[in-house]
Amino acid sequence: MPSLIAVDWGTSSLRGARLDEAGRVLEEKSAPLGILNVSNGDFAGTFASSFSDWMKPAGSVCLISGMAGSRQGWAESPYVACPAGPDEVRQRLHWIEPGRIALVPGLSDEQRDVMRGEEVQIFGAMRLAGLTDGLFVLPGTHSKWATVRGGRIIGFRTFMTGEFYGLLSQHSILARTLEADAPLDEAAFLRGVARAGNGEGLLHNAFGVRALALFGRLSPSESASYLSGLLIGEELYLQKLPPGHEVIAIGAAALTARYALALGKMGARVRTFGAEATWSGLRALLPPGGL
Amino acid sequence: MPSLIAVDWGTSSLRGARLDEAGRVLEEKSAPLGILNVSNGDFAGTFASSFSDWMKPAGSVCLISGMAGSRQGWAESPYVACPAGPDEVRQRLHWIEPGRIALVPGLSDEQRDVMRGEEVQIFGAMRLAGLTDGLFVLPGTHSKWATVRGGRIIGFRTFMTGEFYGLLSQHSILARTLEADAPLDEAAFLRGVARAGNGEGLLHNAFGVRALALFGRLSPSESASYLSGLLIGEELYLQKLPPGHEVIAIGAAALTARYALALGKMGARVRTFGAEATWSGLRALLPPGGL
Repeated sequence: MPSLIAVDWGTSSLRGARLDEAGRVLEEKSAPLGILNVSNGDFAGTFASSFSDWMKPAGSVCLISGMAGSRQGWAESPYVACPAGPDEVRQRLHWIEPGRIALVPGLSDEQRDVMRGEEVQIFGAMRLAGLTDGLFVLPGTHSKWATVRGGRIIGFRTFMTGEFYGLLSQHSILARTLEADAPLDEAAFLRGVARAGNGEGLLHNAFGVRALALFGRLSPSESASYLSGLLIGEELYLQKLPPGHEVIAIGAAALTARYALALGKMGARVRTFGAEATWSGLRALLPPGGL
Repeated sequence: MPSLIAVDWGTSSLRGARLDEAGRVLEEKSAPLGILNVSNGDFAGTFASSFSDWMKPAGSVCLISGMAGSRQGWAESPYVACPAGPDEVRQRLHWIEPGRIALVPGLSDEQRDVMRGEEVQIFGAMRLAGLTDGLFVLPGTHSKWATVRGGRIIGFRTFMTGEFYGLLSQHSILARTLEADAPLDEAAFLRGVARAGNGEGLLHNAFGVRALALFGRLSPSESASYLSGLLIGEELYLQKLPPGHEVIAIGAAALTARYALALGKMGARVRTFGAEATWSGLRALLPPGGL
């Protein structure tokens, strides 16, 4: 039986799922073969060694989202401008092998922001949640906040929250008094979130991690959670959410749980989705009569 | 003749000046012998090899400001709490050799912020400018903003502006499209300053450097100046300065010039001081009848 091979090919990892005609996940696989780890630019070979068995049945179709469609990837699939929903993106699939393997284009917002892969997760969460309007957050190295109206993403913004966390916890003066691999301390995390709301700005509040440590008011194990709360809180306060507003969070459970914790404290309602959103979103992009 | 040996001993450099009784600078020297570069904790030996010739005349006094008075320095000289002026700091000098060599304590603000060395520069600029009230900025890795009333620093805040610039321009995704050693491009710098005022936050605006580069709207040589403007602008907007407000900027000319440029665009009036503020500030801390 032909399958839809749904692939999320990002910067650091390659993940795939085999879906039946109804969109049910039959099997999944993943490997640390992100686009930065593909040797000699041999994307075709890396793809074949990972998925040729799944592609054997005649009529199988593979859709690939993420950075594989960027200038540094398999081939460049130019950004589709917002507003864009599954229809606009499906019309702009970049076919590597016509009717068989395609790269999903990313989205751009007025030539001032871009995403690749997150649009598919949003389309999937829309289907899973049964929503055509809503506010979506995809936490990560580069967190995305997207607004959906009438089934299309009308605009979005990127926040370098995860990358700032890595820079500050590993390379800044804060690294000296911070235990980076300490488990989440919810109280310290929420202190950080609350501090982010003081209006004094991240450039100042980040130094507070150092000052609080100097005065013994923040331990090394608390500091990591506090800094995480400070950064996530900064990102959340910038959204200016009205109380009771619903937010759909998509991503790894450990990360969406932190956002849900902070958003809950701010009075927002949160629903979370994981990898299933990617597979469901790629299913939504299958051309009519595709399998 | 005995001299006042004024020393600014920071994290990465050691600078000194020999002053006559009237406070005139007779000679200066500097070396890359910051406290992180002192081998085996031999602060006494490093000091002697740098300044023993200047210290020879009987009655010479040396005052040392900066990180040499921190826990990682020669000896810990505990922070003096704000409000504090030259009198409060002079009473808390930490004598290494009584009446001969002393470490100047830093200041703390309500156990949530600290400075070491900048307080001396502020006291010096107060004397040089003939001010007992004012708003002072000391740009740098960790920029300080201090409010002075009646000749005392009543409060201050640190901003990690310089350190964020280093992290983002060298270690983040922005480094890929940024020419870090390009000369200042004033127009790009001021575009960054203006962008910082859009209310969308540093976590988002920093990603804009990447997005603008992707769309060819920011060249690698412009990106460094734009990012500098974004960060300095973020710091400046957080001060919520009323139009026409005077700001005293103290520090290296290349850096105070950028602040003056940005502050000027915002309608503030700026006066700048350099190393002379350090020497003048240490002179103000000389105990009565000290030489």
